[in-house]
Amino acid sequence: MKILLIGATGTIGMGIVKNMEERHTVIKVGNTNGDFQVDIKSSQSIKNLFNAIGKVDAIISVCGNLHFGPLVDMSSDDFNIGLQDKLLGQVNLALIGQHYLNDGGSITLSSGIVSEQPIVGGANATCVNAAVEGFVLGASIELKSNQRINAVSPSVVTESLETYGPFFPGYESVSVARVAKAYQRSVEGPLNGMTFKVY
Amino acid sequence: MKILLIGATGTIGMGIVKNMEERHTVIKVGNTNGDFQVDIKSSQSIKNLFNAIGKVDAIISVCGNLHFGPLVDMSSDDFNIGLQDKLLGQVNLALIGQHYLNDGGSITLSSGIVSEQPIVGGANATCVNAAVEGFVLGASIELKSNQRINAVSPSVVTESLETYGPFFPGYESVSVARVAKAYQRSVEGPLNGMTFKVY
Repeated sequence: MKILLIGATGTIGMGIVKNMEERHTVIKVGNTNGDFQVDIKSSQSIKNLFNAIGKVDAIISVCGNLHFGPLVDMSSDDFNIGLQDKLLGQVNLALIGQHYLNDGGSITLSSGIVSEQPIVGGANATCVNAAVEGFVLGASIELKSNQRINAVSPSVVTESLETYGPFFPGYESVSVARVAKAYQRSVEGPLNGMTFKVY
Repeated sequence: MKILLIGATGTIGMGIVKNMEERHTVIKVGNTNGDFQVDIKSSQSIKNLFNAIGKVDAIISVCGNLHFGPLVDMSSDDFNIGLQDKLLGQVNLALIGQHYLNDGGSITLSSGIVSEQPIVGGANATCVNAAVEGFVLGASIELKSNQRINAVSPSVVTESLETYGPFFPGYESVSVARVAKAYQRSVEGPLNGMTFKVY
């Protein structure tokens, strides 16, 4: 398969490349690195990306920023960061991407464990991750030509514990290799409208 | 209790008034009708509302617009309608409202059955309703002074079947009186971070 991987240079992205590259052609996209670059907040940037690479068999997104901070200080503008970036950015990859996806192709977006198990300072993250899972469910019943869409929701990954561990006290971390298998399952399996929880 | 009800003039809003008014003082807010008016898309409008009425014991929101339409034609701007209105509007009512809420007070937002059971043309609605439920969960662990926050997720209401029934084939409708009890439960009960499903 020809797989478009957005967020290929991140910790999880590199694990997906390692999992997929033996069997598939992986086009690696980043913000500033990778084979191609994209700003997922811009429809034009997403369209330019697809016009440059043509049709694909799978789109995987492991990207998007969120706002973290105390609820008591949170403003509408703070909250909109996650809505416009990790949420609408990934949604727009799917909305535009459906037109560049071969028959039977798949779209896989990323949420995260806090959609169900909130952390302090993470109201925006819980909302956005739940929203990504909701979008996947809603979109799954309308895709054409046997296209599918799923989400992967990982716990904190072991390889990032030094940075993110303090925000996830007592959470069991999961290896990037294990998370990558969930993306493989979405791409190579038959399921649609699912959230694959890796925790 | 002094209850601020945003969306008081809608079908469900009027049912909440009927349920609550015997026991509480209900301040009825609408877009263009009611005791006060607010545009939930504007932080300034929300602040003006709270400055006009002062502190309250409960905030109930039964409002917010969504985008409905085929996924294949949906644009980023279409999708952002629900994100900026029913989602960020209600979130912002909570973010600002927490500062105008008495100790032990509650915030109750509205989602809907499509968060779990999608309908054709409703990808935006499923996403936004799931996001509202996610926000409620995320915010519930950070509110101060025994404040609480919940969501109510109704099925299509019987009183609106003439308009919305065709979009919900075979769904069991629920009466406005039954939906209003879920809002009562959120306001008068002890629970926090819940989504009360009325279906």
